Amino acid sequence: MKRIYLDYASATPVRKEALKAMMPYFSEEFGNPNSTHHYGAEALEAVEEAREKIAKTINASPGEIVFTSGGTESDNLAVKGVAYAKMQQGKNIITTPIEHEAVANTCRYLGEKGFDITYLPVDVDGAVSAADVRAKITPRTTLVTIMHANNEVGTIQPIEDMFGIVTEKGVTTHSDAVQSYGLIPINVKSMKIDLLSVSAHRIGGPKGVGTLYVKEGTELVPVLHGKDHERGRRPGTLNVPGIVGFSVAAELAMKEMKKESKRQSKLRDLFTNYITENMKGVKLNGHPKKRLPNNINLSFDGITGDELVKELDRHHIAVSTSSNSNILRVIGVTGEKAMGSVRITLGRETTEKDVRNVMHVLQKIVDDARKKY
Amino acid sequence: MKRIYLDYASATPVRKEALKAMMPYFSEEFGNPNSTHHYGAEALEAVEEAREKIAKTINASPGEIVFTSGGTESDNLAVKGVAYAKMQQGKNIITTPIEHEAVANTCRYLGEKGFDITYLPVDVDGAVSAADVRAKITPRTTLVTIMHANNEVGTIQPIEDMFGIVTEKGVTTHSDAVQSYGLIPINVKSMKIDLLSVSAHRIGGPKGVGTLYVKEGTELVPVLHGKDHERGRRPGTLNVPGIVGFSVAAELAMKEMKKESKRQSKLRDLFTNYITENMKGVKLNGHPKKRLPNNINLSFDGITGDELVKELDRHHIAVSTSSNSNILRVIGVTGEKAMGSVRITLGRETTEKDVRNVMHVLQKIVDDARKKY
Repeated sequence: MKRIYLDYASATPVRKEALKAMMPYFSEEFGNPNSTHHYGAEALEAVEEAREKIAKTINASPGEIVFTSGGTESDNLAVKGVAYAKMQQGKNIITTPIEHEAVANTCRYLGEKGFDITYLPVDVDGAVSAADVRAKITPRTTLVTIMHANNEVGTIQPIEDMFGIVTEKGVTTHSDAVQSYGLIPINVKSMKIDLLSVSAHRIGGPKGVGTLYVKEGTELVPVLHGKDHERGRRPGTLNVPGIVGFSVAAELAMKEMKKESKRQSKLRDLFTNYITENMKGVKLNGHPKKRLPNNINLSFDGITGDELVKELDRHHIAVSTSSNSNILRVIGVTGEKAMGSVRITLGRETTEKDVRNVMHVLQKIVDDARKKY
Repeated sequence: MKRIYLDYASATPVRKEALKAMMPYFSEEFGNPNSTHHYGAEALEAVEEAREKIAKTINASPGEIVFTSGGTESDNLAVKGVAYAKMQQGKNIITTPIEHEAVANTCRYLGEKGFDITYLPVDVDGAVSAADVRAKITPRTTLVTIMHANNEVGTIQPIEDMFGIVTEKGVTTHSDAVQSYGLIPINVKSMKIDLLSVSAHRIGGPKGVGTLYVKEGTELVPVLHGKDHERGRRPGTLNVPGIVGFSVAAELAMKEMKKESKRQSKLRDLFTNYITENMKGVKLNGHPKKRLPNNINLSFDGITGDELVKELDRHHIAVSTSSNSNILRVIGVTGEKAMGSVRITLGRETTEKDVRNVMHVLQKIVDDARKKY
C-alpha cells in the first residue's frame, strides 16, 4: 500500500531542484566562505547569491538576511537579541500563549531572568487582535513577538494591523513565520516586521538551515559567540550547501505560491467539509477562513489524538496531533475533543486522491473507535 | 593548472561515502525525528544509529552525544552551559589565550557578565602546562576549557595530564577538539574530558553539524530554548542527513587514523624540513613534535601572511594565514615574522607531489618578494 504523507508542517521532502543545486557544494566547491582563496571565494559567492534570492522573497535587502541553523535558533536570536539589546529601555515583551516552543520557551526563560512577559488574549479561532496589542503596550515594552500563522491550527494573525500600531510606538516587532513562509505572501516592509524567522525544511529545503531577517538598524545582541560572521550577528562556518538548497526551494515556493495555495486550500476544504458534514462529534480547530491553505485540524469525540496518529500510521498515513500542545486549551476546546485532535497538513505532493483516501480512512477509524467504547 | 587545496583546517570536501549515506534522507526518508509516525521513526532510527557510531569514536555512550549546528554552537553550549549551571558555586573559568574565537569570545562575553576569566601562560611552542593549571584552580573555579590542539599552529595540549588534576578537584573540563578529532585519538574517559566539541566539516562530513559530548551527570544550562530535544539540551529539528553524513565520516576517519596520521606527518616533515633547511628568515610556529600530523605553520621575513595567501592562490594553491590571529603574539613571534605566517594544513587527498610542488612555489614566492623589498 502506498504511503501518504500529510505532515508537511513537521518536515517536507527536499525538492529535487534544491538538492541538485546543493550537490556541487558538498565535495567540489567545498570551501569555507570565510577563506580568502579561490575555494573560499566560490563558497562565498554561492552564499551571497542565496542571500539575495531569499531577501527578494520577503522584500528585504540581502544585508538584512542572517543565516542560522533553523527556525529555533532564529527565534532565540530575535527574542533574546532584542530583549538584551534594549533592556536598559525596558523589560516588557508582548507575545501570545500559542507561540511555537522556540518563542514560548525563550520568553519563559527571559521571564525567569527578570523580564516581564505579557500574553495577549486569543479568541476561539486562535486569533489575537490589534486592539489588544495596542492596549497592552507600555513605555517599558521593547518587543512584540507574534507568530504569523499558528503551527497547530493554522490561524493567520493580522500581523500588518498589529505591527503597524507597534512600530508606530517605536517597539521592535518579531514574527515567527516558520509555518507561513512559502505558503502565503510575506512583505516585511508593508507588514512592518523588524525580525522574521524562517526555516528551510518546511518549504522543500534541507534541515539544519534557516534565516532571521533583521531590519537594517535593528539592535541585536548575539546568542552565540565566536567569529565575526554575518555582520557580527551569528558566528560559525556557514552551511553552504544548506543555504544554497534553501534559496532554491524559497524561489520555487514563491513562484508556485498562488497556484499551490489555491490548489491546497481546495483540497483542504474538500476534506474538512466532508468530515464535518458526514460525521458527528467533530470540530474544526482554528479560524474557518483565515488559516493556512494546507492546514486541517479536527477534534473528535471518542478517540485520542495519539490513537488517531497511531491508527492512521497503521494505514500508512502520516499526520500529527495537537492534543499534546496547549493550543486547544487556549482556544477553549475541552473534554474529549481536547484529547482527540488530529493535524493534517498538505503539501506539493498531495493529490486529490490522497485526500479522498485519507478522509474515508479517518472516518472509519473514528467510527470504529467509537463503536468500541 | 591543477588546483591544490592545503587548507583542510578550514573545510574539507565531504567524503563520497558520507554523501552517499546522506542522500536518502533528503527527499525520501525525510521525516522529522520528533514525529511519531513511520517517517519520523525512520529518521529517528538514522539519528540514533549515527549517535551510537559517533559515541564509539571517543569512548562515550550514545546518550552523551548532543547534536548541534557545529563547533561554535558546541563551544557556546559547553562554556556558557557550565558557567551558568554552576554560577552559585563560583564564577571563575580557566582557559588559554589561544582558544578558537568560539571559546575565546564566549569567555570574553562571560567576563563582561561578571565572570572571572583566568588565562593560562602559553610557552613559545604554544603549549600550556599541567603545573600552571594546578596553580590557578581556586575553590571558585567551575570550568577549565582548553582546546585539544591549536587551530593555527597545531600544538597538541597535554589534556590528560591537565584534566586529571582538574577533575580531581571537582571542576568540569571542556576541550574544543574541532581541529584534532579524526586526526589523533581521543578517549574522553582516559583523558578526563567532561565536555568535548567536534565539528563534522573538518573530517569529511558536511557543514552545519557538530556535536557536544556531555558526560553523563554534567549540569548544563541550554543556550537555545525551544522543544525538549536532545534530552533537553538542544532544541530545533535535527539535521538528519547532516548527522548521518557526520557519523559515516567519523567512522572512516577513525578507521584510517593510524595510516593517515603517519602518512600526513611524513609529508608535513618533508615540507617543513625542506623549507627550514633551504631558506633563511623562516621559523616553524608551534611545537616541533607535539603537533597535529597535518599542520605546517611557517613565518617568513619579508612578506606578509595576506600576501602569501594571495600569491599562493594566484598559483592555484589554497592555504591560510595566522598573521591575523593573536596566536603569534602570544607565543612571542615578533617583527616581520609576526606578519608573514602561513598555515598549511594537509588532508586525505594531499599527495607527495602536491607537497613538493607547493614547497617549491612557496620558496619562489618568498624569494621574489624579498628581492623586491
